[in-house]
Amino acid sequence: MAESTNMRLRLPLLCIILEVILIILFGALVEYNDDTHAKLWNANKSHSATRDDYENEFYYRYPSFQDVHVMIFVGFGFLMTFLQRYGFSSVGFNFLIAAFSLQWATLMQGFFHGMHHGKIHVGVTSMINADFCTGSVLISFGAVLGKTSPVQLLVMAIFEVTLFAVNEFILLSMLGANDAGGSMTIHTFGAYFGLMVTRVLYRPNLDKSKHRNSSVYHSDLFAMIGTIYLWMFWPSFNSAITNYGDPQHRTALNTYYSLAACTLATFAFSALVNPEGKLDMVHIQNAALAGGVAVGTAGEMMLTPFGSMIVGFLAGTISVLGYKYLTPVLESKLKIQDTCGIHNLHGMPGVLGAVVGAVTSALASPGVYGDGLQRVFADAETGKWNPQSRGGFQAISLAVTLGMALFGGLVTGFILKLPIYGAPPDTHCFEDGLYWEVFGSEWNRAQENQTNMVTVELTPASAKGSKVQEIH
Amino acid sequence: MAESTNMRLRLPLLCIILEVILIILFGALVEYNDDTHAKLWNANKSHSATRDDYENEFYYRYPSFQDVHVMIFVGFGFLMTFLQRYGFSSVGFNFLIAAFSLQWATLMQGFFHGMHHGKIHVGVTSMINADFCTGSVLISFGAVLGKTSPVQLLVMAIFEVTLFAVNEFILLSMLGANDAGGSMTIHTFGAYFGLMVTRVLYRPNLDKSKHRNSSVYHSDLFAMIGTIYLWMFWPSFNSAITNYGDPQHRTALNTYYSLAACTLATFAFSALVNPEGKLDMVHIQNAALAGGVAVGTAGEMMLTPFGSMIVGFLAGTISVLGYKYLTPVLESKLKIQDTCGIHNLHGMPGVLGAVVGAVTSALASPGVYGDGLQRVFADAETGKWNPQSRGGFQAISLAVTLGMALFGGLVTGFILKLPIYGAPPDTHCFEDGLYWEVFGSEWNRAQENQTNMVTVELTPASAKGSKVQEIH
Amino acid sequence: MAESTNMRLRLPLLCIILEVILIILFGALVEYNDDTHAKLWNANKSHSATRDDYENEFYYRYPSFQDVHVMIFVGFGFLMTFLQRYGFSSVGFNFLIAAFSLQWATLMQGFFHGMHHGKIHVGVTSMINADFCTGSVLISFGAVLGKTSPVQLLVMAIFEVTLFAVNEFILLSMLGANDAGGSMTIHTFGAYFGLMVTRVLYRPNLDKSKHRNSSVYHSDLFAMIGTIYLWMFWPSFNSAITNYGDPQHRTALNTYYSLAACTLATFAFSALVNPEGKLDMVHIQNAALAGGVAVGTAGEMMLTPFGSMIVGFLAGTISVLGYKYLTPVLESKLKIQDTCGIHNLHGMPGVLGAVVGAVTSALASPGVYGDGLQRVFADAETGKWNPQSRGGFQAISLAVTLGMALFGGLVTGFILKLPIYGAPPDTHCFEDGLYWEVFGSEWNRAQENQTNMVTVELTPASAKGSKVQEIH
Repeated sequence: MAESTNMRLRLPLLCIILEVILIILFGALVEYNDDTHAKLWNANKSHSATRDDYENEFYYRYPSFQDVHVMIFVGFGFLMTFLQRYGFSSVGFNFLIAAFSLQWATLMQGFFHGMHHGKIHVGVTSMINADFCTGSVLISFGAVLGKTSPVQLLVMAIFEVTLFAVNEFILLSMLGANDAGGSMTIHTFGAYFGLMVTRVLYRPNLDKSKHRNSSVYHSDLFAMIGTIYLWMFWPSFNSAITNYGDPQHRTALNTYYSLAACTLATFAFSALVNPEGKLDMVHIQNAALAGGVAVGTAGEMMLTPFGSMIVGFLAGTISVLGYKYLTPVLESKLKIQDTCGIHNLHGMPGVLGAVVGAVTSALASPGVYGDGLQRVFADAETGKWNPQSRGGFQAISLAVTLGMALFGGLVTGFILKLPIYGAPPDTHCFEDGLYWEVFGSEWNRAQENQTNMVTVELTPASAKGSKVQEIH
Repeated sequence: MAESTNMRLRLPLLCIILEVILIILFGALVEYNDDTHAKLWNANKSHSATRDDYENEFYYRYPSFQDVHVMIFVGFGFLMTFLQRYGFSSVGFNFLIAAFSLQWATLMQGFFHGMHHGKIHVGVTSMINADFCTGSVLISFGAVLGKTSPVQLLVMAIFEVTLFAVNEFILLSMLGANDAGGSMTIHTFGAYFGLMVTRVLYRPNLDKSKHRNSSVYHSDLFAMIGTIYLWMFWPSFNSAITNYGDPQHRTALNTYYSLAACTLATFAFSALVNPEGKLDMVHIQNAALAGGVAVGTAGEMMLTPFGSMIVGFLAGTISVLGYKYLTPVLESKLKIQDTCGIHNLHGMPGVLGAVVGAVTSALASPGVYGDGLQRVFADAETGKWNPQSRGGFQAISLAVTLGMALFGGLVTGFILKLPIYGAPPDTHCFEDGLYWEVFGSEWNRAQENQTNMVTVELTPASAKGSKVQEIH
Repeated sequence: MAESTNMRLRLPLLCIILEVILIILFGALVEYNDDTHAKLWNANKSHSATRDDYENEFYYRYPSFQDVHVMIFVGFGFLMTFLQRYGFSSVGFNFLIAAFSLQWATLMQGFFHGMHHGKIHVGVTSMINADFCTGSVLISFGAVLGKTSPVQLLVMAIFEVTLFAVNEFILLSMLGANDAGGSMTIHTFGAYFGLMVTRVLYRPNLDKSKHRNSSVYHSDLFAMIGTIYLWMFWPSFNSAITNYGDPQHRTALNTYYSLAACTLATFAFSALVNPEGKLDMVHIQNAALAGGVAVGTAGEMMLTPFGSMIVGFLAGTISVLGYKYLTPVLESKLKIQDTCGIHNLHGMPGVLGAVVGAVTSALASPGVYGDGLQRVFADAETGKWNPQSRGGFQAISLAVTLGMALFGGLVTGFILKLPIYGAPPDTHCFEDGLYWEVFGSEWNRAQENQTNMVTVELTPASAKGSKVQEIH
């Protein structure tokens, strides 16, 4: 081991310094918005006699926020517990970097997306947006899962959140793009950022930890908890920050159908690409979610259930095929070691979602949307509605996102390569024991006994006098 | 093995064909409803000056929908993971057939419950109804769990969803029955349909897989995830499609009390029927939910918390007694192999719920309900309110449901008996390895080593030199 | 074994008697409130032309209720599954005593907090309050976890719920205290009540079960399900019964920030107090939640995100330090055997929360709150607003709570000490097998084979011919 992985000073110092900085910046910059401020809520109310408590945005956004919150902490966290010896780190580091990222994102997004007299205003919408940004970091986490220390992950989050906010600002504010569910801002950005980071951090000798880079029976079931929660709540994710009324309702509906169609495609192709026709848990856990990613941009538009299902079916198909045929090539040819296969779940489906969004935007018309046009496309309000240029700006947004992600990931990757973060050695990747107390757990006992490892004699004699032993 | 269980062509072909048919039918028949359509939502709004975004049904139904969605995918999915080697299939096939059923149900229910100029209108209410219908299929899945291939399950779903929609149409539209929480339409129908299917698929030699038809420690904990989610969200399930306002509120409240009382009954009788007074996980996982089933019809009525608790207590009692005394008889005498004991959780409590609903309907009066009468009983709006005949129609609805379920299950069972679906052999029921890649998991390694099975010598010599080995 | 632990008569008898009493009392005393009653809802509606279905409190409280419900049943239930052989009991007894407590709490709280013409009115708010009271009982359960029979737990719940309602009445109704998230009424009360109970039930020979009083790998992952759900939904918990509008919104926001800051503090100090810098699952599972406890009183006030983060950071810090340094002292010096360390998660953070609440109350002013002052502080409505005395009453409330909890715990502890409840012997604490059927599970087979225990020969011969065996 060239580098100590001891976190005793590094992790506490970083966590405390970051939190102190966050607290100071929050103290200086963050204020309640009108809907969360005791004085302002009432003050505004008196201005308009009809404004009442039920109009507080809390009641329209908070249920969606909680669903998104579950996706971030349970969904992403448990999805990554599929590794046999990395469950603590998957859920735990997910927890840590999400808790950091949502605070940092509140500042960065608040800074870029409009200060109010030098202050950042917070409320349920900023909570959702911060969770969204956090989601992007967690996607990148999936690429480097098992190969990075918590200190590295926090450093990655610092840079990624910042660049996310810049990219989001360019897309939503400068290019006026639509991306309510974040096919581009969240999924494409997080995926290609993470892929570039893991490329820079390439480990030629990772096969020394190969035996731990796989699942066991119960770890796959824990991962399914993550999958199912992501799948169920994706309609809430895509619709969480759309406009109220029909756009929010329609987005949830479109996502629901896209995911359902995606699931059938996933099962179909998972069995088809296997010589024995057996289903692969990796596909079910991941590819079945691609349908949610792929309607992240167009979900709020008049995509129709029919269109949503086609997109979902395609997304599931390319995702399974990606896991089967592309991931091995990326690793062997491009040296991209993508632990969770985020390229298949977030990368390609994200790009697909961006393209679908551009096409659907370009096909939008007042005839289809009626007065609802400006509720979906903000620039339709100005009267100068040009769907082709709208579609063009959507396409440009995708290009910008890819550029930002790859460049940001490159720089961040090199920063993470510095030998100061306690990264795990090649022989101890995918291993909780490096960063967690695991005395008392079975595998730890096995570790301790490694020299006098539990083994079994296979003589007829032993077979006779004993019970067959089942292990689960 | 008389029949190959290889799914390589069968499953992909069926999934792809079904999804393509669904997509075509959705393209031809399905439209956004007024609350999800960009044009119509605004158009209607302009007709009535007071209609505003907060009136979109999304805000009144979607939180309930998400709770129901969790019940369908996490609740049912994980409840069935109690089997030691069938966790992948339980969650995975649950996922597959639910994703299919909700699409097919949207079409079938839309077709039977009212087309709009030849189109089916969709929105959050159709999403809830589709999930409800899916629930019925998943109940039947519980009866055949471990003994059917995914292809069989999809074929079963095709028929069951169709018949569900017919039965629902007869009950709700023709007989004007109340059944908001589906004691009849969902639980009774799903249970007796599934019981008849499993009767037709009777396997005389199922005891060859007996050693796998039981739980292990952690699989029971996974199952409790399912149980607890079903239990918690059942108030949302029963109230999800009631009328707004007091009926929805009251239904949730009644269900909450029924379940609480049911839980105490379950613990009481589980300990009572055991010679050592020990609690049985099977009872806790299932019977504690019977209280939700049993107020599925009467929950929206003025059942009172008092009445709800009595019903819940009874439901828990009969459910535990059913598991203990009736299930073995059904298997030995009637040749009904009911893996999950759906007769005890959905069958008997469903019938109890139908009876309670009929009685409560027959006792309804304007004196108790005031102007709220027509909010619960649609036909009270016509002025010709006759509670006795209402109760009678409720009773007829139960009879119709039982008839439809048994007949439908019979036909479907025979269709599923054709030797073309890759059903598991008697020796390999309750076994994930048949349809799933499980290399890398412990039990699969055990499978591989079956000839040189892990065994243990029990000589004093071996006992001396080694550690006692704990297995979890 | 001095005392039989057989529950066959004791548990059923107690459950049935309790439920029958509950049903009778509900029949005599409980009525639907205006928002759940078919007649009254409409009657009131006609009085005020503007009242409409969307004004039903259901739509403003029910999503919060469901989040709280998840915390009670999944959060608390699974958090306690960390013990290696006590998962059934953790989730199961949590389920049982919660189902009982919420019914009993409805009566007790209804009795103390205002009868309506001799009747208790129920609706979604009473459901939330009952769940809150149940939470307090489950906190105490954490202290005695593994050392009590289900009968003892039910008896404890009877007394604790009653005293909770008395204490809550004194605080909220007599002293006019603010405590929306229950830093005092729920956490401080539950913690010190439980600590006193476990002190009275002190077992000098508990180390006979020491080997079972720890976690295994997968049990820690199950516990993380509980942790993450508690963490995610704590904003809903603290805001569930605040006033509508800005207070509810603000409470959720403050809690969100407090928890995020708390999480970073938890990771920091968990690594810092470990010689090797390794993280401890016990800290992550528990201390990361202390931030929610600590803003339970001040969360609805104008604490600001800045203030919330400071409180959260402090709470996480003292909680980790408590687990590391205080818990062993409490056990060795004060003979307080606190299985889950509730003193660190609920006790100290609860007191911190009460102090923060008192200070924040004392600093409140119309200048900061504007017209919102009376929406947070009920007594501001009278015009006689005195923040210092308000802060004083908050401090008195903490003292009252501590006194009630310690006294109540003392009495209840002695009642629970009677040798009639089937408490587990010192040698069989933390053991599911005592109260649950666990045949078929691995550890039970190990139990059966205890004499001819699974052992392994470690001769070179055996090592050669066999596979290394991994256990998970």
